[in-house]
Amino acid sequence: MNTLGEIGEHAAIERLAATLGTHPDLRTGAGDDCAVALLPGTETDQVFTTDPVIENVHFLPTDQPERIGNKAVGRVLSDIAAMGAQPQWILVNVVAPLKQEVGALEKIYDGINALCRRFGATLIGGDLAQGTCLELHVFGTGTLPAGTALLRSGAKVGDAIFTTGPLGGSIAGKHLDFIPRIEEGIFLRESGRVHAMMDISDGLATDLRHILQASGGGALLEADAIPKNGTLENALYDGEDFELLFTAAQENAEALQAHWTEKFGPHLSIIGRVTDHPNELCIQMLDGTVRIVEDKAFEHFKPKMGGTNNE
Amino acid sequence: MNTLGEIGEHAAIERLAATLGTHPDLRTGAGDDCAVALLPGTETDQVFTTDPVIENVHFLPTDQPERIGNKAVGRVLSDIAAMGAQPQWILVNVVAPLKQEVGALEKIYDGINALCRRFGATLIGGDLAQGTCLELHVFGTGTLPAGTALLRSGAKVGDAIFTTGPLGGSIAGKHLDFIPRIEEGIFLRESGRVHAMMDISDGLATDLRHILQASGGGALLEADAIPKNGTLENALYDGEDFELLFTAAQENAEALQAHWTEKFGPHLSIIGRVTDHPNELCIQMLDGTVRIVEDKAFEHFKPKMGGTNNE
Repeated sequence: MNTLGEIGEHAAIERLAATLGTHPDLRTGAGDDCAVALLPGTETDQVFTTDPVIENVHFLPTDQPERIGNKAVGRVLSDIAAMGAQPQWILVNVVAPLKQEVGALEKIYDGINALCRRFGATLIGGDLAQGTCLELHVFGTGTLPAGTALLRSGAKVGDAIFTTGPLGGSIAGKHLDFIPRIEEGIFLRESGRVHAMMDISDGLATDLRHILQASGGGALLEADAIPKNGTLENALYDGEDFELLFTAAQENAEALQAHWTEKFGPHLSIIGRVTDHPNELCIQMLDGTVRIVEDKAFEHFKPKMGGTNNE
Repeated sequence: MNTLGEIGEHAAIERLAATLGTHPDLRTGAGDDCAVALLPGTETDQVFTTDPVIENVHFLPTDQPERIGNKAVGRVLSDIAAMGAQPQWILVNVVAPLKQEVGALEKIYDGINALCRRFGATLIGGDLAQGTCLELHVFGTGTLPAGTALLRSGAKVGDAIFTTGPLGGSIAGKHLDFIPRIEEGIFLRESGRVHAMMDISDGLATDLRHILQASGGGALLEADAIPKNGTLENALYDGEDFELLFTAAQENAEALQAHWTEKFGPHLSIIGRVTDHPNELCIQMLDGTVRIVEDKAFEHFKPKMGGTNNE
């Protein structure tokens, strides 16, 4: 059990995360969508995140460059949305082979800049180096009022579990074209009613487990309440939906749904509730039976598309 | 002239940099060692930079992992030093193949954390993804009083040109083991006497040209005044010295040298002066003759070690 191939992504990240530093201004380091730190001398927190987007892992050489750019910066903006923060600065490290068309790189940057502009983020720098295939390493910061970041760790037993949109089937195109839920994330933070939040990048089953591990409860999902693109299997495991997954007290659920519809139109789905069975993730099927949701987490170093995590 | 191999790194970076965004709080975007932006509501500026370190480009598979970590974060800290800023937060994206030993990754992180701790920086997150060879993409921030960042663009005709240490021969080990000039950079900013500054990553000849291009003057170097590891050719072109290169008014040069020696001990070298011949880089040889310094810039996408730039 010594190589990445043997222990897998999550075990390796845990070992590396154990080495990370501490600081009095640092509120949250490893283990959430972004790191969160107080901006000294202000009442503002700053969030930090980074995501790689790699050819033949996160996109194909035949994908349109503007869409590759949208995905590269969209993943970072989605992490910022998951904290309820306003995006701020973006930097991009590009790795590319000699044969890379510069015109295609410019189109990737067009995609990055278009999504940045839409959400008030600004691309301010980066670097370019030679490698064997195209990679984009995107770094982003955001801001929000001090102490208000929505973490994975706040879910409470009895909470309703929500998702902001349909899950599954992102491979058909949404994994490139998704729009990060920035406005929705800020709205949810400002509502003061959300207990825990993250974005769905590794699939509902895996990401809900992250919330449960951080918060200490279990969950019972309702199969027919989950908005789906495709089958239940798709909704649970496909990943790269980049919708927000969050919990709030059952008593506030209706008001939250009503305000949501006022502001964003479509229905806000309640897909289950937090139970007092630690780390037990179950689902009630259409026929009323309850099953355990299998743990089939996507991990890098296993052959499949996708995946994102702050260490 | 359509691929990176055909147009080279610097032309490609110029084309990509032309697409970067603007923002009222952004003081300096592309074209310096870091981007610089005002922290809203404060009298502090924040600096941002990112650098890739790639196997067989910036280090060899046989190099010790702690030294690879030192170099990876050292390059970013050196960019922060070049602005005169105090390092703050660090994030690292790792790309690695299946066969990567996790123990070696932990040692790389030990090297990163050791250098961070030395200079008050904190490693707070990152990500891990699969690729064909080992890469570290390091993102860093720093802070300094608003409006005081030392840029490449401030050099004035008649200025003395300084370097903080010997140049050349870094391939023998310094390119991995260098200590970024953080304390020196802050001292130079606080002196209030430095007009322009950057770190020497691409070699004295290339990096001094960057200052001249940004500032509008030329330079006359003195061959025997340049502190060297190896030959003059080594000092001019090797790169990856990670010393600071800066200019200050001739009339302040002696006082600056005296204060430097009080604080840091070794002699601070004056290696030439800024002339009024735009972009003309000359050198006076030991025999008194003056030559043009050839432009042999290192570029990625050509076979040699090294190189760093904020776009």
